[in-house]
Amino acid sequence: MSTDLAPALDLDALRDRVDTVLAESLRRPPASVPSERGRAGELTQALTDFVLAPGKRIRPLLCVLGWHAAGGDDGEETLWRTAASLEVFHAFALIHDDIIDGSPTRRGRPSAHRAFAARHRARPDADTVGVHAAILLGDLALICSNALLNTAGLDNRQRDAVLPLLDAMRGEVLLGQHMDLMATGRPTDDVEKAMTIARLKTAKYTIERPLQLGAALAGADRRLLSLCSAYALPLGEAFQMRDDLLGVFGDPALTGKPVLEDLRAGKATVLMALATRHATSEQRRTLDALVGRADLSEDDAARIRHILQHTGARETVERMITERYEQALRALDDGPLAPEIATALRKIAARAVVRTT
Amino acid sequence: MSTDLAPALDLDALRDRVDTVLAESLRRPPASVPSERGRAGELTQALTDFVLAPGKRIRPLLCVLGWHAAGGDDGEETLWRTAASLEVFHAFALIHDDIIDGSPTRRGRPSAHRAFAARHRARPDADTVGVHAAILLGDLALICSNALLNTAGLDNRQRDAVLPLLDAMRGEVLLGQHMDLMATGRPTDDVEKAMTIARLKTAKYTIERPLQLGAALAGADRRLLSLCSAYALPLGEAFQMRDDLLGVFGDPALTGKPVLEDLRAGKATVLMALATRHATSEQRRTLDALVGRADLSEDDAARIRHILQHTGARETVERMITERYEQALRALDDGPLAPEIATALRKIAARAVVRTT
Repeated sequence: MSTDLAPALDLDALRDRVDTVLAESLRRPPASVPSERGRAGELTQALTDFVLAPGKRIRPLLCVLGWHAAGGDDGEETLWRTAASLEVFHAFALIHDDIIDGSPTRRGRPSAHRAFAARHRARPDADTVGVHAAILLGDLALICSNALLNTAGLDNRQRDAVLPLLDAMRGEVLLGQHMDLMATGRPTDDVEKAMTIARLKTAKYTIERPLQLGAALAGADRRLLSLCSAYALPLGEAFQMRDDLLGVFGDPALTGKPVLEDLRAGKATVLMALATRHATSEQRRTLDALVGRADLSEDDAARIRHILQHTGARETVERMITERYEQALRALDDGPLAPEIATALRKIAARAVVRTT
Repeated sequence: MSTDLAPALDLDALRDRVDTVLAESLRRPPASVPSERGRAGELTQALTDFVLAPGKRIRPLLCVLGWHAAGGDDGEETLWRTAASLEVFHAFALIHDDIIDGSPTRRGRPSAHRAFAARHRARPDADTVGVHAAILLGDLALICSNALLNTAGLDNRQRDAVLPLLDAMRGEVLLGQHMDLMATGRPTDDVEKAMTIARLKTAKYTIERPLQLGAALAGADRRLLSLCSAYALPLGEAFQMRDDLLGVFGDPALTGKPVLEDLRAGKATVLMALATRHATSEQRRTLDALVGRADLSEDDAARIRHILQHTGARETVERMITERYEQALRALDDGPLAPEIATALRKIAARAVVRTT
């Protein structure tokens, strides 16, 4: 395709810029970010540490790309602060999610509630205090994300275009987390529900809304916002299904996430729903007995992996990922995007779907 | 005083109006409030139930009074939606606070995490699921409060005046909750720290900021915003100290809160800090041994109450309440408020300080 020859936006340079803006935003936070007797307290310091830990920054990146896609060229400060606010919002989502999932680690480091528990290990109730401090840390992240946006300098047109998308995004991820919480714990063959959760928690939250937000900020019309969805929704589903595969078959040394975690939690993934649906009755009994057990052993995990493989679930999910990946790329071909934007979005798509971490 | 003869705003009628606006806002929520397959899910229903349970509505009321104080007369829709958003924000704060305090009840009903646990009692992990669902419910409340404000129709002037106050309020209550969490568990004689927590969690969050928000919405100048603070901060401290007294000496049948809760938690109150500071060494040993014990008995509580009484802490707190109450009233006398506003604020002050619930 001719577009492959177009000059590309340097995604790594954009991500570095996101990191710089994040560091600045948190070093000179809005006046509303609490400080205790003049100095940053434990909570603010923990938020800075959490947000600045290395990450993919996929939501801010997509926001920046959406803005370029809509021909944004000035008002950069507003763009970058908006993009940064998405990453701080994401910190909120991760911190509370890790409490709910009981995840001990995040990006290879202790998760927020474990880090607080370690810091207060002298207290007899250190684990509980850790969870409670992490609830407040997540709340602070959400509040700071808002304060960042409130001071981003959006004009009236931008506010009218962006705030409904932002409110929608927040509601969607919350609903997804609640459905996830309620579905977690035992295997189910409800593929459609697992896909709905993936769509809310990942496709809309991680890909579609950030891209649309950036585009709306730069004045995108309805057609461009639809193109964003046509690219983002299949890609986001594929992204989540890749995550699900990595959660069971991935290398913990690369993902930074214990490989038994999803199985022990009994996450309602499309992968597991397909396996449950196509399992023999003996395989079904094994899944019922093992998935969701907190004391799941490596051997148990191997038996589950065997079933995921032999029911064809793993292969089906790989095929679904490929189909959705291709669907996302086709959406780009049909659209009015500048070649360098389309190229960057293709790169993002490839990174989201073909990856080991 | 002549102002006592002025026609008064009907506070009960204003509160009823707040309830009506809240019910409407939640019946027709912003599009962003999540619904599962078209119908309101468990989470949205729980939020409606929680917010619409009877309450004092003190924050929305103060917002409305602030608006009147600044001469607000049109744009009522914006005022009421802003006021309602404060109550929904407060639901967020209460829900997460009850998790952190381990409170089984709220306003005489099960707290959110206990209600979820009861609803999912068939699950072996019902208590944990209850806490996790309540974390999400609090998050949803915060997000909805924001969506309400985003759709309240604030113009540019209002936004510039209101959003910094709102961001400040949110940061302050979070910092207060974190200081509270860290100070809770064992008696301390740090009266100043206990007062700082009271100032952040109550004086600023419950009284000052809501009043200022309403005033700012109607275009208050700096002088009126200062008057709000001069009234609100001493009143808010008095309000919290009354709460602390009720938490130990109150009638659970009236407060709807188990009377041992604060003592079992070991809350860092001004009352307890004063008692600890003035305790004999034997009394200090008793406090150290009993305060913060989860299995505190009625007899233990009686011993602590005896110490609170005999160190003079109870009496000192009563005197501090009176001083602050009078200070708040004096701030009203000095100011340029219309007589009916001053009268309403005097009533609010009396209700906050002289109460049994």
